[in-house]
Amino acid sequence: MKAIRIKNRRLGLCEIPTIQPADNEAKVRVLYAGICSTDMEILRGYGNFEGTLGHEFVGIVEECDSDPDLIGKRVVGEISSGCGHCEWCQRDMARHCPDRDVLGITGRDGVFAEYMTLPAWNLKVVPEAIEDRAAAMIEPLAAACEILEQVHLQPGTNILLIGDGRLAQLIARVMAHMLCRVEVVGKSESKVRRMKGCITRGYLNTQPPGKRYPVVIEASGSPRGWQTAVNAVEPRGKLILKSTYTGDLKFNPASLVVNEITLIGSRCGRFGPAISSLLKGLPVTDLIDGEFTLDQWQEAFDFARRPETVKVLFKIGEK
Amino acid sequence: MKAIRIKNRRLGLCEIPTIQPADNEAKVRVLYAGICSTDMEILRGYGNFEGTLGHEFVGIVEECDSDPDLIGKRVVGEISSGCGHCEWCQRDMARHCPDRDVLGITGRDGVFAEYMTLPAWNLKVVPEAIEDRAAAMIEPLAAACEILEQVHLQPGTNILLIGDGRLAQLIARVMAHMLCRVEVVGKSESKVRRMKGCITRGYLNTQPPGKRYPVVIEASGSPRGWQTAVNAVEPRGKLILKSTYTGDLKFNPASLVVNEITLIGSRCGRFGPAISSLLKGLPVTDLIDGEFTLDQWQEAFDFARRPETVKVLFKIGEK
Repeated sequence: MKAIRIKNRRLGLCEIPTIQPADNEAKVRVLYAGICSTDMEILRGYGNFEGTLGHEFVGIVEECDSDPDLIGKRVVGEISSGCGHCEWCQRDMARHCPDRDVLGITGRDGVFAEYMTLPAWNLKVVPEAIEDRAAAMIEPLAAACEILEQVHLQPGTNILLIGDGRLAQLIARVMAHMLCRVEVVGKSESKVRRMKGCITRGYLNTQPPGKRYPVVIEASGSPRGWQTAVNAVEPRGKLILKSTYTGDLKFNPASLVVNEITLIGSRCGRFGPAISSLLKGLPVTDLIDGEFTLDQWQEAFDFARRPETVKVLFKIGEK
Repeated sequence: MKAIRIKNRRLGLCEIPTIQPADNEAKVRVLYAGICSTDMEILRGYGNFEGTLGHEFVGIVEECDSDPDLIGKRVVGEISSGCGHCEWCQRDMARHCPDRDVLGITGRDGVFAEYMTLPAWNLKVVPEAIEDRAAAMIEPLAAACEILEQVHLQPGTNILLIGDGRLAQLIARVMAHMLCRVEVVGKSESKVRRMKGCITRGYLNTQPPGKRYPVVIEASGSPRGWQTAVNAVEPRGKLILKSTYTGDLKFNPASLVVNEITLIGSRCGRFGPAISSLLKGLPVTDLIDGEFTLDQWQEAFDFARRPETVKVLFKIGEK
């Protein structure tokens, strides 16, 4: 099968033997797969991953000995596979299992390929009302929804969102859907413009005045974004960190202590709320700027790197 | 009057005119005042404060035009004086008022003196059952109790406390009082020994194995303590930062994001819970290792700096 693989930080399209599922796993024919900023970070060395890249997908189950009912179903999949036995797995949080592997990120081949495998219990059947390309965005949408499980956001909460990239665009939509007032600090005029309808105000590379936001979401992944966030959060406010940075940050903890800031690390989320939000009409497919085949992998990544691009999908298999 | 004052990071005993209260303020004759680690940080340059040092005290009100009922009463005082009008002051959180001054720390002369002044509304009358020397420790005890307002600590919660100094000793007692299981990482054998009865285990300069604490409290104020805290907190756990550091810390936010850690800055607290805990029998005066007069200021600070010393009080006025 064809697969886009990374080795020594170099990417390439390979012809490899078709991946085979283990006993508890399903084999899935990939329909669509999305390029995520984490993929870009991996290319820069994040986590030292080697193997088939990619973790956002929708596909059709072709084999599944442990749960034959899944065969033929259209599915998406939670990306962390846990041991199934530890406290975290028992609490339905395999994403914190110490022995987990993570699809296309740590210890497990990913989805930029014709076929992929995952434990059957990681898969969720996609409701018919959700189209394929929207389903391929459930994983990042779940990461945006994760904030809702960690912080109580009342309708009308003033949120400052920092970032205008792939994840930030989804966060803006989720927060607006939850009736919050969202202001954004972005670096691209066109990307901030694409948030219209979700935000009440956009700042371009500017620090909003004062420490006046009870909730600040840092989704830019840059040290400058971090500094903007610290400066903008009000005393006793919450600062949510959505980005995985490759490097270290320097910060003075005294300002967090004196202002009694709560800093909340936030990562992947459960798929349920993301699926519900799509069924409630939250739009995502208009964020897709390009679709490419696996053979066009180089063009796809070049296009994804362009500063104005939001989402790029690989169109891989047919239904 | 006599006052221990700081200028250009140099401390000295001065004879200055007796401080006079403003319209809304009370003039208080100081009975006891405590030396706090923040005083030591100020001597190292924290906040660039100049004036009379000290913020932990108990005293007798001698003048108070705005609230004459207070005259003759034994009082302690919240250290932040706000504008009285802003949102924070209205919410009884003058400690976050942007225009606040802070007793002996920012913009207001402190309590290592025969007399001090504070707005009348900052003062709390001390119940008779609490002895003078315990009352002088209400302010740091309130800082320890502040954690209870920020984090829901169920009985039996496994807490790792990092630090064995003045504040850490009080935190250990408050957490044990609230029926939590406390383990400690300290650097002094004798100070860890003084926590006996409050802790289930003490580590000396050692990293406890694993990421297994749902709550970690960093009260050592050292970069090493911070690193120990980050290593010990379990996924989705809470890391409470109690220390104000003079310098910057370097950290990799990816570990906070991937493990979804919540970092909570925590500072001063309301006096009510601290007073209640003293009335419920929480002991504090056994932590006092030395009492000195203002004339003995140099001995007092030398004694406070000794690695085995926990609490040092100035005994200033008579009742």
